[in-house]
Amino acid sequence: MKKIMPRPNRVYCTWAWLLYKEPMRILYHLWLSPSSRKVRIVLGEKKLEFELQLEKTWDRREGFLRLNPAGEVPVLVETNGTAISGGQVISEYLDELHPSLNLMGNGPLERAEVRRICLWFDEKFYAEVIQNLVTEKVMKRFLKQGVPDSNAIRAGKSNICHHLAYISYLVERRTWLAGEAFSLADISAGSHLSCVDYLGDVPWSDYPLAKDWYARIKLRPSFRTLLQDLIPGVQPPKHYQDLDF
Amino acid sequence: MKKIMPRPNRVYCTWAWLLYKEPMRILYHLWLSPSSRKVRIVLGEKKLEFELQLEKTWDRREGFLRLNPAGEVPVLVETNGTAISGGQVISEYLDELHPSLNLMGNGPLERAEVRRICLWFDEKFYAEVIQNLVTEKVMKRFLKQGVPDSNAIRAGKSNICHHLAYISYLVERRTWLAGEAFSLADISAGSHLSCVDYLGDVPWSDYPLAKDWYARIKLRPSFRTLLQDLIPGVQPPKHYQDLDF
Repeated sequence: MKKIMPRPNRVYCTWAWLLYKEPMRILYHLWLSPSSRKVRIVLGEKKLEFELQLEKTWDRREGFLRLNPAGEVPVLVETNGTAISGGQVISEYLDELHPSLNLMGNGPLERAEVRRICLWFDEKFYAEVIQNLVTEKVMKRFLKQGVPDSNAIRAGKSNICHHLAYISYLVERRTWLAGEAFSLADISAGSHLSCVDYLGDVPWSDYPLAKDWYARIKLRPSFRTLLQDLIPGVQPPKHYQDLDF
Repeated sequence: MKKIMPRPNRVYCTWAWLLYKEPMRILYHLWLSPSSRKVRIVLGEKKLEFELQLEKTWDRREGFLRLNPAGEVPVLVETNGTAISGGQVISEYLDELHPSLNLMGNGPLERAEVRRICLWFDEKFYAEVIQNLVTEKVMKRFLKQGVPDSNAIRAGKSNICHHLAYISYLVERRTWLAGEAFSLADISAGSHLSCVDYLGDVPWSDYPLAKDWYARIKLRPSFRTLLQDLIPGVQPPKHYQDLDF
């Protein structure tokens, strides 16, 4: 006679099922952190599920410092507990691990161009625009670091024009920022610009080519969920979520 | 009868040979730019020939801006004229193109760890140490931007201790910074530290583990040529080039 394996106790199973929670990928982020937004879009493009966890990095929480000794967001914690930190680092890690949708281009030269534009936004745009506008207008308020510096805001508003002109220059010659394919370069630039756009500080009407490129980015489902974020006490302008802005 | 191809005129050939110069890879750099040093070490590790070209980025030379619109060093121009810019970007490009010596690790997770430490030095160490020490003490003089800010120098000297402690923490647990193999993480950290060491501002004696790691870096031929740089008007301390410092 065939041996029948005992079936697990149903009552116990129901309890276990109620208590058991499928481990989920967690992304520690901050509202207007361009690097966090970048990883959210990459996760969305790759159709990878994740939970968002707001991390107030200024609290220097010990558990978070153990995940990333640099104390900065974004940090991605995989379901097995592996923690990866840094916007560009996590994005490239996800692209290597889930290559069905290629976001880095083909071959060393294409990848170098994607990375060059990512670096342009992560370093140059961040220093010249994000710090002068987002840090001054929003982060200073959260951190109670006094009133925004009007000189910095003026500088940020002037600097952004050079970047919009450069985006226009690129998309006049290419379909997307780094070439013919949508890539991490577009995601990086879009993440940064979306933070400034939340404050209504992007002079879109002066740069129709850049505006057209951003409208194409906004159409992507990975981007739409991100635009639904609302930051406590800071209202975005009317056009922020509109596809036809 | 077999048709004999005319041989080229010998006199002409000699002239052409005299005039002809084998195109060479060119690296545009600056003296105490950690990113430029990083690429020089990578080129050395990969045994790739190159010519160094000093680029005073503050002159905003038009020909250079055509190579890199960001106007920053390092920029690598390949023999076919292809220009690649950004320290991390060039390093990864060279590693992909010349993979015989792997500097990025194996698999997505190892590469993420190498990139995390590169980012730590390129962003965190740069902002907290390089800008407070190298920019204040050396670049301000070159750019005639006034006297160094003593508060910034004090902050830089205090900040470097945290980084040396973190290097010590890592090499207590691993052979090299990102794992068991020498990688771009060690090159990045070494490049940054060598710039501060040129000014004599690294308190090596307080961090014997970090000092031991740096002594191992200094032993590499790719690093030795770099330590022979002399910056006009700034003398390095005695121990700077010593292997047994």
